[in-house]
Amino acid sequence: MPRVVIVGGGFAGLNLAKGLGNVAGIEVTLLDRTNHHLFQPLLYQVAMAGLSPADIAVPIRSLLSQYHNIQVLQGEVLSLQPDRKIVVTDFGELGFDYLILTCGARHSYFGHDEWEEHAPGLKTLEQATEIRRRVLSAYEEAERTNSAEASKRLLTFVIVGGGPTGVELAGAIGEMSRFTLARDFRNIDAASARVLLVEAGPRILPMFSAQQSARAARDLEQLGVQIWTGRAVTKIDGDGAEVGNERITSATILWAAGVKASSLGHAAGFEVDRQGRVIVEPDLSVKRHPHIFVAGDQACFVHQTGKPLPGTAPVAMQHGQYLARIIRQEIAGHSHKPFHFVDKGQMATIGRSRAMVEVGRFKLSGFVAWMMWLVVHIYFLTGFKNRLFVVLQWAWSYLSFRRGARLIVNKEWRLHPADSSVQPPTGGTEQ
Amino acid sequence: MPRVVIVGGGFAGLNLAKGLGNVAGIEVTLLDRTNHHLFQPLLYQVAMAGLSPADIAVPIRSLLSQYHNIQVLQGEVLSLQPDRKIVVTDFGELGFDYLILTCGARHSYFGHDEWEEHAPGLKTLEQATEIRRRVLSAYEEAERTNSAEASKRLLTFVIVGGGPTGVELAGAIGEMSRFTLARDFRNIDAASARVLLVEAGPRILPMFSAQQSARAARDLEQLGVQIWTGRAVTKIDGDGAEVGNERITSATILWAAGVKASSLGHAAGFEVDRQGRVIVEPDLSVKRHPHIFVAGDQACFVHQTGKPLPGTAPVAMQHGQYLARIIRQEIAGHSHKPFHFVDKGQMATIGRSRAMVEVGRFKLSGFVAWMMWLVVHIYFLTGFKNRLFVVLQWAWSYLSFRRGARLIVNKEWRLHPADSSVQPPTGGTEQ
Repeated sequence: MPRVVIVGGGFAGLNLAKGLGNVAGIEVTLLDRTNHHLFQPLLYQVAMAGLSPADIAVPIRSLLSQYHNIQVLQGEVLSLQPDRKIVVTDFGELGFDYLILTCGARHSYFGHDEWEEHAPGLKTLEQATEIRRRVLSAYEEAERTNSAEASKRLLTFVIVGGGPTGVELAGAIGEMSRFTLARDFRNIDAASARVLLVEAGPRILPMFSAQQSARAARDLEQLGVQIWTGRAVTKIDGDGAEVGNERITSATILWAAGVKASSLGHAAGFEVDRQGRVIVEPDLSVKRHPHIFVAGDQACFVHQTGKPLPGTAPVAMQHGQYLARIIRQEIAGHSHKPFHFVDKGQMATIGRSRAMVEVGRFKLSGFVAWMMWLVVHIYFLTGFKNRLFVVLQWAWSYLSFRRGARLIVNKEWRLHPADSSVQPPTGGTEQ
Repeated sequence: MPRVVIVGGGFAGLNLAKGLGNVAGIEVTLLDRTNHHLFQPLLYQVAMAGLSPADIAVPIRSLLSQYHNIQVLQGEVLSLQPDRKIVVTDFGELGFDYLILTCGARHSYFGHDEWEEHAPGLKTLEQATEIRRRVLSAYEEAERTNSAEASKRLLTFVIVGGGPTGVELAGAIGEMSRFTLARDFRNIDAASARVLLVEAGPRILPMFSAQQSARAARDLEQLGVQIWTGRAVTKIDGDGAEVGNERITSATILWAAGVKASSLGHAAGFEVDRQGRVIVEPDLSVKRHPHIFVAGDQACFVHQTGKPLPGTAPVAMQHGQYLARIIRQEIAGHSHKPFHFVDKGQMATIGRSRAMVEVGRFKLSGFVAWMMWLVVHIYFLTGFKNRLFVVLQWAWSYLSFRRGARLIVNKEWRLHPADSSVQPPTGGTEQ
């Protein structure tokens, strides 16, 4: 019986597994280093205290428990042996007939890995709660300081990268300061927080039209966000950042700039592009390895438009659905067509009642676009329970101007840490 | 204007602050080392993946934002100078006219602090998510191991302490194995998990009648929990525990045994009992310091029955309400009566449809007791939003036999940890 091994339970891996679920004559193993499928498009809401981790993450094995031919294992892939058709994991070797890599991407600090300590990215639940801790702790610290200088540093937030994630984070911090936190503090004027969005390119949201991008910039500015375009970050340390030649003193810097694909493809000797993505054939297979496929953010697919497809959820979902179809066809002895991406448009949100939608030439912004954003995200959110809870959280937040998950949770759980250099219970000082 | 400083935002501190809220002529500062009030009675449900942290924790400053005379500060008290009427915090000194210590209790390992690493207690959100990580990771690891011996070790759970917390944890693990996880795993029989509840005393739930305690033991046994009474834990290490002379190989040990009050009272020179609780006067004040009071788990109040009141939520709430009343009276120039505890009974839950309630001679167990337990906990849960969401989570879990927050979240958020000795991304091996 053909054994299909899927590495990664993101949008591509999950859709692929579902497409092979309960198909007679196929045995599927899905490996992921976490136990959950994460709905990445709403991760910024966890970082911004609007949703809880469990609202947007569901155990992969629950999502697939109805499929008797699928086994889910939590584990990490250490290396591939393509010619022996073996995957080496941290708990042993797994043989495969078909291998699909959907390991996604992580942040890239353009060769400055030391910046990560001071400027977390947003790809995992752990990073989202770390960002939440830093942002909320900055307000708490500002409330108890007597120094105007310290207060200014604590209430300055720098977001690096003007793509959708950077825009969402900047908008949410601006909004939170103005509406949610303002009434809860006595000593600081939460609305005076300075939020700086830095983008090296000429404009934010470059994947949208120039007109929509300008509208997004205006919307952000109304929330108190300053936008600096055409200026790159040249240094990040514990006390702030350097943007061009200017020094910004800031306690909280967030990274939403470069991404880099998982190194697994490169390590296996596959051809990769500059971002480490595996360059795939028209059917998403790897050159000279017709039984190994790469999908989602880890794949570089250029065959349709001449430009690589972006690393977005719709691309990953269509990859997964396509691969399920062609694996079923191939096992049935049929040939298959190349992958064809159907572009259903794109959307981004800025904050309460503000979003933008572009489908081909159709462009929309403001409240109606925001409602479309809500409906689409709820529709794609996995799991009945999660949909219900997210809708209720949003309704509650919209009506009350509050945020449902304003928790500062520390990294250290012990009372008596063996290593006293770890995070002190009150949250530490490195933020 | 008299300055009231409250240390701790638990049940006692929060009820006290509310009782002084918007009272003319009083200025209140509430200090807490976390930013949230935690509804401790439901903390075990976070540890057992039934609720999310944000369902049972609310920012203290949100809860008190309507009271203009109350300032909330996140910070830690380092020491007291009772005679100078000063509290020394990690951000400076605070003067007070009235000081109320409600710092609660933490776990005590009876002089074996080194056991904590291998047997976390359950007092904070951090500990609850750590326990959740360990319990869920044990199942994940058992699913991918080929060794029967490793599987047995991973599916053995030892809970130390037969009080309400230990009973709730043991019941929840038994129930989760039988109902929730059984259908999601392919290689292990989740229902074969061994759950051992160890109690040094002669019976579990000693605060209940012998009859109720026996009923609880039967209920737990039906969920597959083995109960060992009259046997103390003599050793805990990374591979298991020794109970009396018997060695139990187990990957997951949870601590629900001794507690110890905050050391702040003792350090300030106040008279304390064996558990470190400050021995208080009939009005909860400290001997020779009529303007310093101790409330909640940190206080040892013996004046009513000859026995110290237990460290429970009802005691803490009544402490807080009483102190608000007498401080208002004293400031108004009136005298006050001693504290009198009104015992409204006690309850404990074992699992789905099983609980016990005792009010004086009135005893109840089973489904009706469980419904009472639900209603009382929802009633006292703080915040409209939290009530609604917890009710919905419970309804969903009850109907679906699922758990809403089955997430394994790690301690390390960085991609490039500076210190490679920290927890690896897949969850580590020390559990």
